[in-house]
Amino acid sequence: MIEISAETVAQLLYLVHDDPEELQEALGELRPPDIAEALRELPPDAAAKVMAALPFELAVQVFDEPELTRHRCAIIQHIDPARVGPLIEAMSADQQADLFREVPADNRPRLLARVTDSTRASLTKLLQYAPNTAGGIMTTEFVSIPSDWTVDQALRLISEVGGRKETVYAIYVTDPETHVLLHVVSLRELLTVSRDENVLEIGSRRAPLTVGPDTDREEAARLISKYNLLAVPVVDDQHRLLGIVTVDDVIDTLVEEQTEDVQRFGGMEALDAPYMEIGFLAMIQKRAGWLCALFLSEMLTATAMQRFQGEIERAAVLAMFIPLVMSSGGNSGSQATSLVIRALALQEMRIGDWWRIALRELPTGLVLGAILGVIGFTRIMVWQDLHIFNYGPHYKALAFTVGMALVGIVAFGSLAGSMLPFLLKRIGFDPASASAPFVATLVDVTGLVIYFSVAFLVLHGTLL
Amino acid sequence: MIEISAETVAQLLYLVHDDPEELQEALGELRPPDIAEALRELPPDAAAKVMAALPFELAVQVFDEPELTRHRCAIIQHIDPARVGPLIEAMSADQQADLFREVPADNRPRLLARVTDSTRASLTKLLQYAPNTAGGIMTTEFVSIPSDWTVDQALRLISEVGGRKETVYAIYVTDPETHVLLHVVSLRELLTVSRDENVLEIGSRRAPLTVGPDTDREEAARLISKYNLLAVPVVDDQHRLLGIVTVDDVIDTLVEEQTEDVQRFGGMEALDAPYMEIGFLAMIQKRAGWLCALFLSEMLTATAMQRFQGEIERAAVLAMFIPLVMSSGGNSGSQATSLVIRALALQEMRIGDWWRIALRELPTGLVLGAILGVIGFTRIMVWQDLHIFNYGPHYKALAFTVGMALVGIVAFGSLAGSMLPFLLKRIGFDPASASAPFVATLVDVTGLVIYFSVAFLVLHGTLL
Repeated sequence: MIEISAETVAQLLYLVHDDPEELQEALGELRPPDIAEALRELPPDAAAKVMAALPFELAVQVFDEPELTRHRCAIIQHIDPARVGPLIEAMSADQQADLFREVPADNRPRLLARVTDSTRASLTKLLQYAPNTAGGIMTTEFVSIPSDWTVDQALRLISEVGGRKETVYAIYVTDPETHVLLHVVSLRELLTVSRDENVLEIGSRRAPLTVGPDTDREEAARLISKYNLLAVPVVDDQHRLLGIVTVDDVIDTLVEEQTEDVQRFGGMEALDAPYMEIGFLAMIQKRAGWLCALFLSEMLTATAMQRFQGEIERAAVLAMFIPLVMSSGGNSGSQATSLVIRALALQEMRIGDWWRIALRELPTGLVLGAILGVIGFTRIMVWQDLHIFNYGPHYKALAFTVGMALVGIVAFGSLAGSMLPFLLKRIGFDPASASAPFVATLVDVTGLVIYFSVAFLVLHGTLL
Repeated sequence: MIEISAETVAQLLYLVHDDPEELQEALGELRPPDIAEALRELPPDAAAKVMAALPFELAVQVFDEPELTRHRCAIIQHIDPARVGPLIEAMSADQQADLFREVPADNRPRLLARVTDSTRASLTKLLQYAPNTAGGIMTTEFVSIPSDWTVDQALRLISEVGGRKETVYAIYVTDPETHVLLHVVSLRELLTVSRDENVLEIGSRRAPLTVGPDTDREEAARLISKYNLLAVPVVDDQHRLLGIVTVDDVIDTLVEEQTEDVQRFGGMEALDAPYMEIGFLAMIQKRAGWLCALFLSEMLTATAMQRFQGEIERAAVLAMFIPLVMSSGGNSGSQATSLVIRALALQEMRIGDWWRIALRELPTGLVLGAILGVIGFTRIMVWQDLHIFNYGPHYKALAFTVGMALVGIVAFGSLAGSMLPFLLKRIGFDPASASAPFVATLVDVTGLVIYFSVAFLVLHGTLL
């Protein structure tokens, strides 16, 4: 296997695009997702020229790749208007909708005029759903059959229309009158039973699992993942079949949501696009908001410190351990937060479980704090005894202060870090998006107060 | 839809398990993954009793659920030894291997003695691969056919053996002599062509995508996700077919890896089990290691502060802004790290791209730092002018110090945060697992040095 960068492939394709034979050779073993990846590296006009040179079938497959999202709209501007209609027409319904979502509102009518009435009708239906819902990622190209059909009729239909459907592996059985979804059979089940059976007679008797069009796409992903489905049907409130969400869409969803989670956990807005494709100003915008919000709330640490100015003036040695104790609180808080966020996302715990978590995190935090406290205490004693640094005559009291403060701060960090995601979820926020940075601020400010309070209690009359 | 907790279902199932009719009714609409979820809530001996009461087919499906991992091994100890053999025998090959991975080494021979020779041979083969490789999650239950068969022969085979295979939607065509993998066809393709064609004649002419048994399971996931596959074949170095990794396994892999990433990003070892199922001591162990490592490295902040003790004694007001400037550096570093970790994981950037990222992060960091710097400067000036706090006669110089230090620290944070994942990857570490906490420490220590250096330059001769 030779690994070639997408840029190189892109340049190669552009170089040979006007010689059909050379192009054919250059395409070689490339699959549609590879070509889509390469086209992203070209300016839209160059990408459009390559698209125009590709065999139509292949061009459609390439344009159908979710990898080309955010580029299709720019490329289409440069494609011969007469070719645009058939190209869009041949795309799968969910990708058509995705494309139109990217088209600026004032360009939409012009593009809609290029497709057939039935495509326009399907598009209008799909576009009414938000992109993060099951309706927003579903496709309308599924195989559905009336409930009075036999297995043989179903298999004949699949061999006729199979090539044009997003998946043929799940077949949806509906009431011939009301179009209500009655049953789902798998192609595997159809193939392993006698061909004259009625389709309602085969497979599981359970009511099919469904989602509504406004269900969060993450919930559709959870169902597909938990029940090992190849697709989940989307039904309206009369239980009529609107579309299906396939396992491919779900994988894309999982990867996207994961990216958003990591970025939000890092304390910023989700980018919604690859790092290298974001403009400089957009990048600043995505990051400055959260950074400023955190900065403004961290100003509370300065306010807290102002209250302790007298202590610092009298015992500057106290200031030395501020970063250490603060960061320990932050680290323990961030551990607890990441554990709880993930457990909430995986539905391992519910919001009502908060007190069970609190009862676990408090002792855990105390033990972890005690471990760090002992290390901190030892560090100061050893440095003093080995004459590495002179903490003054009250170094034992100082070491004790740092040790005790660590116990309190780490315990508080674990408790606050584990409880904040519950609180955020309770008041309607996404815990993944805001917990980590909030915990940091909360723990930093409280940590300072705990540290100086312990210092005051221990050192009062000696250093303070 | 009524949502019932897994605990309630578990208790219900246990209550009725010895009355077959009541059990049948209680099982109602429950699917195997639901029953698996419920069994996790029961003590192993109770779960074993419910398992024994289930119809055999259903018991096998429940035991086959990855959801029951980590519990199966304990449950099996309480199941009638005579029933254990057939139960394991009927599980799918990849779940058999998973089960045996959990069995303590000294119990394995006893359990292995209960299965047939062929199962034992397949297990021995699967168990040699590490659980995070393609070999470790693959199954050996695929449909493979010799290359001289017709479509009709292939379809007949599927209707016979289809029920017993993990997937029938991808069919693997091998050389009848050498067993080398030659071609992959989809069931959809088989159904939409004439039945007397040779199987090699249909579908794409491209060499099939494959992975080796030692390929990282994340790479198998990436291929399935990028090329929208239902399974990817695992081949040995002679290109002989060993097994397949299915899309179901890949979804489980994605979710697991996501959990590990979030936990490692939070600065701890991955738990490898749900939060509520980890014992107190195990939890301390998973968290104390990283917490101590971070604490020890954060001690460098105390060392750095010791060098500036003189400055703090002369100007205690400087100490007030330490938490603020440190946390800003940490926040900008954590933004940059999370962006780069994710982009590396999605292969949006390669290790050789580091300098492009550096060239973006430095100006981004400078602008972000300037924004925070202006806010910080204004804060001090306003507080002083409004007499909220008295920063002393040199408050303008102090405000300027804080502002300039913020520019330097945020720029350094962005740069260090974006470069560290590259460095860790270069020296062979997983960037996701270690970057975030390392960045925090690095930025904290450097931040202090930058802050006091700026202070020295600006305030020398006045405050210092």
